[in-house]
Amino acid sequence: MSGTLLVVAGAAFRAGRLLLTRRPAGGAHAGLWELPGGKVEPGETPEDALAREWREELGVDVDRVEPWAFSSGAPHGRHVTLLVFRVPSMRGEPEPIGVAEVRWTRPDDALALPLLPADRSLVERLVRGEEGLLPASPDGVGG
Amino acid sequence: MSGTLLVVAGAAFRAGRLLLTRRPAGGAHAGLWELPGGKVEPGETPEDALAREWREELGVDVDRVEPWAFSSGAPHGRHVTLLVFRVPSMRGEPEPIGVAEVRWTRPDDALALPLLPADRSLVERLVRGEEGLLPASPDGVGG
Repeated sequence: MSGTLLVVAGAAFRAGRLLLTRRPAGGAHAGLWELPGGKVEPGETPEDALAREWREELGVDVDRVEPWAFSSGAPHGRHVTLLVFRVPSMRGEPEPIGVAEVRWTRPDDALALPLLPADRSLVERLVRGEEGLLPASPDGVGG
Repeated sequence: MSGTLLVVAGAAFRAGRLLLTRRPAGGAHAGLWELPGGKVEPGETPEDALAREWREELGVDVDRVEPWAFSSGAPHGRHVTLLVFRVPSMRGEPEPIGVAEVRWTRPDDALALPLLPADRSLVERLVRGEEGLLPASPDGVGG
């Protein structure tokens, strides 16, 4: 088995806001905010895992995803490799099915939230818009 | 087992040039150019694998690496997830130990080379310098 846990997450923007979800109470990192996603299960590709997680947690179908950036390290002891995909569009409206809360956050608000440690540096890169992920038009991408 | 093959590669710049290596004759994708790296072996973290591959292929020790970007897909049939790390500095001078050739390429030259298909989109992002990887100073990072 690999020495790292492979995890995927998706970054969707709508009208300049980033989609974040909040972890349920009681579980690991309860109440923290993150880019929605989860573990890549045996036999899955990262794209498979992201589509499954967004269906299970948010009730939406992602049309296509694009590799964007990743983080790698052991912020919680276990080594985790987090792959973040852009989600330019989805079918359906994200609902908090497998998460505590769903929020479309303004860039500044996103950084003010209690974020999952593994996600913070990636959310900073996203909301700084350095990589052209923040839409130029007010309607932008997503949703 | 995972439905994807986890592969790592490193991006090092020196004086505005990107380090690329050429695959040996006879093997898979013989003669094609790529960002140096290789498979993550069982029990390794991606960082472990990158350090091992650069030691084996180039005879250098990487001091530290920083996650940058990834590609994901099945350009050659098997699904591959390629994690690219920045390599800001290394100890030693890269030599073609486990590769056919080592070259510090100018951005335009890099894109003109026959690149490994999985690497092309990442090399394009690197040499466009959009993500601040191209050093501002002529000496830049790396080396």
